[in-house]
Amino acid sequence: MPDQRRYTLTIACPDRTGIIAAVSSFIAGQGGFIVEASYHTDAETQRFFMRQEVRADSLPFDADTFRQLFAPLANGFGMTWQLSDSALKKRLVILVSKQDHCLNDLLHRWRSGELQVDIPCVISNHGDLRSFVEWHGIPFIQVDMTDKTAAFEHIAELFETYRGDTMVLARFMQILPPSMCQRFPGRIINIHHSFLPSFVGAKPYHQAYQRGVKLIGATCHFVTDELDAGPIVEQDTVRVDHGDTVEDLVRYGRDIEKTVLARGLRYHVEDRVLVCGNKTIVFR
Amino acid sequence: MPDQRRYTLTIACPDRTGIIAAVSSFIAGQGGFIVEASYHTDAETQRFFMRQEVRADSLPFDADTFRQLFAPLANGFGMTWQLSDSALKKRLVILVSKQDHCLNDLLHRWRSGELQVDIPCVISNHGDLRSFVEWHGIPFIQVDMTDKTAAFEHIAELFETYRGDTMVLARFMQILPPSMCQRFPGRIINIHHSFLPSFVGAKPYHQAYQRGVKLIGATCHFVTDELDAGPIVEQDTVRVDHGDTVEDLVRYGRDIEKTVLARGLRYHVEDRVLVCGNKTIVFR
Amino acid sequence: MPDQRRYTLTIACPDRTGIIAAVSSFIAGQGGFIVEASYHTDAETQRFFMRQEVRADSLPFDADTFRQLFAPLANGFGMTWQLSDSALKKRLVILVSKQDHCLNDLLHRWRSGELQVDIPCVISNHGDLRSFVEWHGIPFIQVDMTDKTAAFEHIAELFETYRGDTMVLARFMQILPPSMCQRFPGRIINIHHSFLPSFVGAKPYHQAYQRGVKLIGATCHFVTDELDAGPIVEQDTVRVDHGDTVEDLVRYGRDIEKTVLARGLRYHVEDRVLVCGNKTIVFR
Amino acid sequence: MPDQRRYTLTIACPDRTGIIAAVSSFIAGQGGFIVEASYHTDAETQRFFMRQEVRADSLPFDADTFRQLFAPLANGFGMTWQLSDSALKKRLVILVSKQDHCLNDLLHRWRSGELQVDIPCVISNHGDLRSFVEWHGIPFIQVDMTDKTAAFEHIAELFETYRGDTMVLARFMQILPPSMCQRFPGRIINIHHSFLPSFVGAKPYHQAYQRGVKLIGATCHFVTDELDAGPIVEQDTVRVDHGDTVEDLVRYGRDIEKTVLARGLRYHVEDRVLVCGNKTIVFR
Repeated sequence: MPDQRRYTLTIACPDRTGIIAAVSSFIAGQGGFIVEASYHTDAETQRFFMRQEVRADSLPFDADTFRQLFAPLANGFGMTWQLSDSALKKRLVILVSKQDHCLNDLLHRWRSGELQVDIPCVISNHGDLRSFVEWHGIPFIQVDMTDKTAAFEHIAELFETYRGDTMVLARFMQILPPSMCQRFPGRIINIHHSFLPSFVGAKPYHQAYQRGVKLIGATCHFVTDELDAGPIVEQDTVRVDHGDTVEDLVRYGRDIEKTVLARGLRYHVEDRVLVCGNKTIVFR
Repeated sequence: MPDQRRYTLTIACPDRTGIIAAVSSFIAGQGGFIVEASYHTDAETQRFFMRQEVRADSLPFDADTFRQLFAPLANGFGMTWQLSDSALKKRLVILVSKQDHCLNDLLHRWRSGELQVDIPCVISNHGDLRSFVEWHGIPFIQVDMTDKTAAFEHIAELFETYRGDTMVLARFMQILPPSMCQRFPGRIINIHHSFLPSFVGAKPYHQAYQRGVKLIGATCHFVTDELDAGPIVEQDTVRVDHGDTVEDLVRYGRDIEKTVLARGLRYHVEDRVLVCGNKTIVFR
Repeated sequence: MPDQRRYTLTIACPDRTGIIAAVSSFIAGQGGFIVEASYHTDAETQRFFMRQEVRADSLPFDADTFRQLFAPLANGFGMTWQLSDSALKKRLVILVSKQDHCLNDLLHRWRSGELQVDIPCVISNHGDLRSFVEWHGIPFIQVDMTDKTAAFEHIAELFETYRGDTMVLARFMQILPPSMCQRFPGRIINIHHSFLPSFVGAKPYHQAYQRGVKLIGATCHFVTDELDAGPIVEQDTVRVDHGDTVEDLVRYGRDIEKTVLARGLRYHVEDRVLVCGNKTIVFR
Repeated sequence: MPDQRRYTLTIACPDRTGIIAAVSSFIAGQGGFIVEASYHTDAETQRFFMRQEVRADSLPFDADTFRQLFAPLANGFGMTWQLSDSALKKRLVILVSKQDHCLNDLLHRWRSGELQVDIPCVISNHGDLRSFVEWHGIPFIQVDMTDKTAAFEHIAELFETYRGDTMVLARFMQILPPSMCQRFPGRIINIHHSFLPSFVGAKPYHQAYQRGVKLIGATCHFVTDELDAGPIVEQDTVRVDHGDTVEDLVRYGRDIEKTVLARGLRYHVEDRVLVCGNKTIVFR
């Protein structure tokens, strides 16, 4: 199998003529082979967004040298940018409660090699899923939520101790305090069990049942101060009808929650998600 | 081609043992051939809903005699019920503004025979669509909306004069006064250009764009006093992404609006939609 | 929580007037409370199909007495029929190879209580999944496929020894011999990784890639003598595009395979699937 | 409203390093403002495909000068390429039979300005749709198909006389002779009423009904010598079940046919579809 190592360059800057030419000329000038290239200009802010995936073995230097050489060009255009190396896997710290459908799905994708990440630990406020997590050889840490302030401080410390890149709320069922959201901006991803902005907050399937909607949905989004109002990464819906009970909605919902979370996480892990205000650009 | 005339019996009553047996025995006792049968019990209200479609030529009497013979049984069970005859087409009065994608779609389904209804007239607050409607041989009536109270009174009178069964707001873009909603309960159907309950009211595609949702939708619902809050008949969604402008959302939206309205209307016209509180049972 | 035990009656017989009346009167005469009732007449064969779900606690007798009392009525209408008791779980014997996405999905639905079945054993031609299966407390049996005739004979014996009701080919990747298909008619369910009848046989994702289709699919079907040609229970599709490699199709495909198999199996386990020639009626 | 005129450059050439850099530098060097840029490398043929949309008013010259200046660069890379000007609308000649759901849909999109094309004439082997087409102010030409060879020769001449760019078979229901397919390669687009490659040829809904599939579909494709085997541009599917008759499939099918054809045509008209062997790249 050939070397599949890749560098992924993501850029945001004010829009103007010549950005693509400058960046692609820089890469081509080093012999860089572009595997995938995506662009977008946000009409409201006139900001330009870009993602370039380059084969690592086509370049004569490593990621650090890439960064040094690219910095002057980036400064000239006023870029916010980042270069990631596929050889360094992102580290996901997963938070769960008792429901395990999302966890089961993510761990399967991880052990089958589909989701290319490291999972340094799983944190839960309950002990139910310990055996399943530990069967995978992943540390399971139970946190007592009696004192919520202390508990969230403990979780934040664990996240840092385990050097997490992204915190995944895989049906954690606890509302994070604003201080935590502000401490890790753009690094906490949640799966909400409704098609946001409908049915914010608790018991969305009950709300959906009461309203008599004909489709239910799920939303993968970044967590911000405001409950269920952060930038949306991915959503999907599924058809229901009058014959479905709340329990049926919950059951259908599980399938769509795990799919939407897995897709959203995949985009995030592959540096396909760029945030623009309260919206996301997702270069699929 | 065989006689396809059918009687459709729809029933709502308190749930108890023996309803299906009583009704199906009544029909079978007359030699009635059931083409389609559907049932539902609403768990919250413990009300039972039923729809039976019977071949007219399998019965030895007409619809009126059916009604007379069935009445005692219906009274015994405390039924709210109705028998409709497929030979008597429902009369749809369609209200439009300037946008014609829903109208174009409905008129095509009507002239191709797919939508088995009569359309006694089309009413509009603008004259733009006169020629298209009149090409179909359907009267087109333009109503001046300067005095809204008078205008809506005029529309209500037209609806009655033309003996409309159902008023269809096919992107009419005017909010009906409560008095009108109360005058024709369960007889006014609207297509709203969002996936309700998200984005109630004006400019839902702009709202969707601002929120950065990854799917947009449309909702066909009965009109009640409360804006965009009546019982939902049908909904659907379509995927959008960061590259789509508001104009793109509007364009995608048109396709889904006309599909959802056509499906919802078809169910309604075929007596498949029963209302239960603020929800609908749709026997597809 | 109330008694949720249910008897499910499924019937097939020549169509005529009075079947619903007779059956529902029989049930109502015993005080039986019908939870769900579904009917269908196949236009080509003029056969009538019926499914009735009755609350067990509403009847004054057990399933065997039900069967004895119902038999004369059934004979009168020439019915093929069956009564199942939800207290007696169906027994699924699952066959797998090395790929575990369907197995992982089914075992999660089983251990979470969503899929109400017993899984007496998992059979595989490889040892890879032993540890995962055994973690669930389910026997894992590896069968050597060197001598295919002997191997399939062994599998058939295991199926009978473990009193399997249904054999599930959860990406087993081996073609069953006709003798085995004939031995267990209507009892073997497969998930095929294409939208049948497109791309029968080996490497369907490669075939799909070569043809340049814009959607790929999966099909859950009963296994018969003819390869990938048995009655279809459930299907679904997912969008792909020119940027997707065969590996991407395989990845998308896994998600749809497991969903389609889980849905199809659920319908089958709940006695919602009736076979009519080479087609299925699925009372959802 | 600002000038929305755009030049769209589409390119195919052997893949190598530096293509994007060269093309984007050429455009940027002239002050060209890139509105949309898309790339793809076909893994099998190692051919590179590219589409660039540039704002016309950002360039100091017209399309012809663009072509002259770009030619040397294109030759250097061995490019097959084309530059189209949004001010010159594509000319669609539409062929229909008696069914008008696709025609009705396309003409609405045309008259509402959604589909930015010219429709110089509509050709049919029947007279049924004359009045509807002529209401739009579009010439309607009826061709007698008694002598098929002469008829198709006549159609080809009409296509050329009316300077058609693309011939659209909007449910024309006649198989084009190979000579005609070869005369206009990549310029004839058909809507087939099945999810190809399933159900090639006549009566696909009957075939689908017989096979008992749980979804039906439609396929928009380029017409080639081999029946229903040309490069696929767009497809979609819709769920059906055992209760649906062939007539129901036909009805559902109409909705999906018109949607798929409209989407496919839009992509084609906007130069988003590039052909690679028997597959398409669709830069959405």
